[in-house]
Amino acid sequence: MADKIFRVNMTDLSTSIEEIPADWAGHGGRGLTSTIVAAEVPPTCHPLGPNNKFVVAPGLLSGTPAANSGRLSCGAKSPLTGTIKESNSGGTAAQLLAKCGCKAIIVEGMAKDNVWYNLAVTPNGVVINEEKEVIGKGNFEALEILSERLGSTQGIITIGPAGEMKMRAANLSVKDPDGHLRSCGRGGLGAVLGSKGVKFISIDPQGGKVEIADKDKFRAANKVFAKSLVDHPVSQALGTYGTNVLVNIINESGGLPTKNFTSGQFEGHEQISGETMHDLMKDRGGKVKHNCHKGCVIQCSQIYNDVNNKYKTSGFEYESIWALGADCAIDDLDLIAEADHILDDIGIDSIETAVAIGVAMEAGVLEFGDGEGLLRLLTDEVAKGTGLGRIIGGGAGDVGRAFGVTRVPVVKNQAIPAYDPRAIKGIGITYATSTQGADHTMGYTIATNCLGVGGSIDPLSKEGQVELSRNLQIATAAIDSTGMCLFIAFAALDDETCLPALIDLLNARFGIGLTGEDVTNLGKSILKTEHAFNQAAGFTNADDRLPEFFSLEAIAPHDAIWDFTGEEIDTFWDF
Amino acid sequence: MADKIFRVNMTDLSTSIEEIPADWAGHGGRGLTSTIVAAEVPPTCHPLGPNNKFVVAPGLLSGTPAANSGRLSCGAKSPLTGTIKESNSGGTAAQLLAKCGCKAIIVEGMAKDNVWYNLAVTPNGVVINEEKEVIGKGNFEALEILSERLGSTQGIITIGPAGEMKMRAANLSVKDPDGHLRSCGRGGLGAVLGSKGVKFISIDPQGGKVEIADKDKFRAANKVFAKSLVDHPVSQALGTYGTNVLVNIINESGGLPTKNFTSGQFEGHEQISGETMHDLMKDRGGKVKHNCHKGCVIQCSQIYNDVNNKYKTSGFEYESIWALGADCAIDDLDLIAEADHILDDIGIDSIETAVAIGVAMEAGVLEFGDGEGLLRLLTDEVAKGTGLGRIIGGGAGDVGRAFGVTRVPVVKNQAIPAYDPRAIKGIGITYATSTQGADHTMGYTIATNCLGVGGSIDPLSKEGQVELSRNLQIATAAIDSTGMCLFIAFAALDDETCLPALIDLLNARFGIGLTGEDVTNLGKSILKTEHAFNQAAGFTNADDRLPEFFSLEAIAPHDAIWDFTGEEIDTFWDF
Repeated sequence: MADKIFRVNMTDLSTSIEEIPADWAGHGGRGLTSTIVAAEVPPTCHPLGPNNKFVVAPGLLSGTPAANSGRLSCGAKSPLTGTIKESNSGGTAAQLLAKCGCKAIIVEGMAKDNVWYNLAVTPNGVVINEEKEVIGKGNFEALEILSERLGSTQGIITIGPAGEMKMRAANLSVKDPDGHLRSCGRGGLGAVLGSKGVKFISIDPQGGKVEIADKDKFRAANKVFAKSLVDHPVSQALGTYGTNVLVNIINESGGLPTKNFTSGQFEGHEQISGETMHDLMKDRGGKVKHNCHKGCVIQCSQIYNDVNNKYKTSGFEYESIWALGADCAIDDLDLIAEADHILDDIGIDSIETAVAIGVAMEAGVLEFGDGEGLLRLLTDEVAKGTGLGRIIGGGAGDVGRAFGVTRVPVVKNQAIPAYDPRAIKGIGITYATSTQGADHTMGYTIATNCLGVGGSIDPLSKEGQVELSRNLQIATAAIDSTGMCLFIAFAALDDETCLPALIDLLNARFGIGLTGEDVTNLGKSILKTEHAFNQAAGFTNADDRLPEFFSLEAIAPHDAIWDFTGEEIDTFWDF
Repeated sequence: MADKIFRVNMTDLSTSIEEIPADWAGHGGRGLTSTIVAAEVPPTCHPLGPNNKFVVAPGLLSGTPAANSGRLSCGAKSPLTGTIKESNSGGTAAQLLAKCGCKAIIVEGMAKDNVWYNLAVTPNGVVINEEKEVIGKGNFEALEILSERLGSTQGIITIGPAGEMKMRAANLSVKDPDGHLRSCGRGGLGAVLGSKGVKFISIDPQGGKVEIADKDKFRAANKVFAKSLVDHPVSQALGTYGTNVLVNIINESGGLPTKNFTSGQFEGHEQISGETMHDLMKDRGGKVKHNCHKGCVIQCSQIYNDVNNKYKTSGFEYESIWALGADCAIDDLDLIAEADHILDDIGIDSIETAVAIGVAMEAGVLEFGDGEGLLRLLTDEVAKGTGLGRIIGGGAGDVGRAFGVTRVPVVKNQAIPAYDPRAIKGIGITYATSTQGADHTMGYTIATNCLGVGGSIDPLSKEGQVELSRNLQIATAAIDSTGMCLFIAFAALDDETCLPALIDLLNARFGIGLTGEDVTNLGKSILKTEHAFNQAAGFTNADDRLPEFFSLEAIAPHDAIWDFTGEEIDTFWDF
């Protein structure tokens, strides 16, 4: 069974199953969402209007037994950035969609009269159903209701109250193997799905399977690939401390943005570190290792229990902990976990929202360090969609605009995450040039700037940063197309058996003969497709810049400043 | 005494008086503010940061007895649009500044520690004083206090509470000859002055006068010029009914945007028309004719009294009445006058704020037609800077973003004023291509599309609209440099004695020999300077477009749609 495109028109409530156009066939994941958005969405359309399209695509290897291949890509024109957008996450949806024979779902048009719907996906296509029961519900209650209604094994991609309110930081929640959730966090894609009138997408493969052209070759390649992942020291650190291993590392580097980016070190870093979190989880019967999807051999997720040893959150990431912690000057990990839980329940990006609150703290809405106040903002303002809640739910840029704050850490209106670009300059190039607004995952130079992976480049020097970011952004665009987790990159950069094994997996899956160069070219062409969309939407090099304050204010402890010229940044696109 | 540049640095609280650079010498008003902003403000700077500059300039003829020459230009990079911005108004400031020998004031840097200042301008330059007394006060009370403190004849340019809060729709209020106020309404320049830490600028010419090179020639030219203005039928209509004469005219044309741009006609138009207003003013002892500045012979302003025959508002313009009236579906002129008064007191643009409320009504914040609710929004939310108040104070674009509304009538994030571009297509070209965001005054095609001035071009056809808008935008840029009121354009378009007389006035004032072609070239060069600034700030042709909904939704009664292609719009810049 060849994979198909499942198309859903919410204006006339029609669905269809389509063959894959020839030039979409080699794409999956981000490569496919970006190709479809670029082909079908008018770049200047309103992101929440009928002409935007919401695209979901599993990766090229999703649904196979390949290690770490369970990432789901969602794409659209972003209401937060106005750029093309791909946001990906774990959970079960990608694998189940692939098993439905679905290469991508395209949701277009807009439902009328504020009626809400759900989309039920099976190998037979999509059925549109009116939805009432879970409208207005928080994500955790909604997932419980749906597990009861649909059975616990169906995949779910849902928006929360934030997406229903079309907040521009609204995310998508994807059910994980335990019935908890993972998030396609960035860029407000939850508002796009909400604007279509779709509350959730359920996925039932009804026993469907993904075919593999050469099973023996696949099995052999997967063994090499998985071993390469498991053996890498960063994989092992991630399995022990989660991504939050980075708090102490980045604080030490002087690149941990603190109190709305006014310092590069946080005195409360020990209290919120991965090491502290690890010990708390052990003491409270949580889980130090946990998969976000079946087949993950790194297991950077975890189960974080509260002081009464009850489940509080999972997938408790460094960037969320940094944003709610150092950036807001809050050093109470339990409070941060509670905030993370609330953000997940509302269905809103933890990075964007917490950075927005950091800016609000600078504006005087709340004192820095006021954790209880932060929880109150989330439950009484954001969750309820009050005026202030909608400002915060609109992201850091909106808070800056509403309160006249000039220290607003955004690029293309998306909040800068957990690495200060003055002290870690490679990531600044990624923030500036990414086709998606500020996003560390687009070209994670931290690997080489701070972790010694793929060599070592001095984070404080300008030397080599543009090339580093370019190479990583190209590689990332390709990885994001396979359905692979980005954390395979550590092994891929250091172990020469890793990337050939990944290519073997692709070749064995489809019976083709890709080379390493083909994969690099795929990455380049994805970036160029995305860049061309943005240019047609009105973006120019002037948008590939960090906010002015990074050039005006040096940051402790290195007294570092952002000192790239526009011309230097623009050489990024010389490929 | 040759005119000088008065420079004020709010970072180090220094002032200086400078000679005029050669290439600024031929400029005044908008031509000068735009030339200075383009020369000294980095196009990508934060509009509320230290690198933006706030520039005030009287026009080339300000301070002379030339009829209608009292307009003041203020300029900066706009926090609302991100473009270059000039906003002008009547009042006494332009004439008094010219009498101080001041060609322009440039306010740069930013005050520290949230301390507020006032700037006292005399022929000896600027003195910076700390200000406490009027901080936080509404404009009317502040003007009263300052008239008492400084005497009634000094000029005042002030921000209100909205400017202090750095709301992006905050305007500048300029004291008029009666001690009331006029506004530089558009583009949030009040937030720029507020960001510098300046509450108000006072102007005391201490008996200074403007020199005229050839007094006899000047007097003769002024006679011809003033007669030309007075004789034009549109001038006469403006003197009788004010600009609000347009309600019935534009309603009849089907271009009166109603209920957030969902219809082109308002059933309550008679209740808010200029004719109704004229009769009410007469009945209540108001004034039908009134100057916004000394020497105006058109007198489109008026004094509007309330039901108890007490002063309520003046300079009660068609665009404000339309925005608060038809666009919000409110047909009570006294309530609209009350709202206008409150907006003036807060110091916020009546067009931007009322259009923002129209979008908020569509979002369900308030019912359409709920006038009491609208007053409550202004006094309890905007004036107090609550969350909702700050969303509305950020303008129509912010309301759309906060509530996920797609029908948001803005270009370059500035609210579209009182003429629907689907039914009056020439003005749509002006909205799209203006260097300043949507602004009818930048190229007032209504003259030729609806009033038969300067010929007649069918408002519903695309034919001739680009050329019409181009010619008017070029002429307007030149007029805005002279200190002349834009309403001289009606006579200039129809009476062949008008423009030569204006050129004679300029030549007699400076002892020079400008030709009509020179004036046209001045207008062209100003537009190109402004356009180049915007391009360097990151704007492209993709920004010279109307919102998508104008192309998707036809408007009653003509079932008219916005049907210009991007390529057609872009021919605007072929000059």
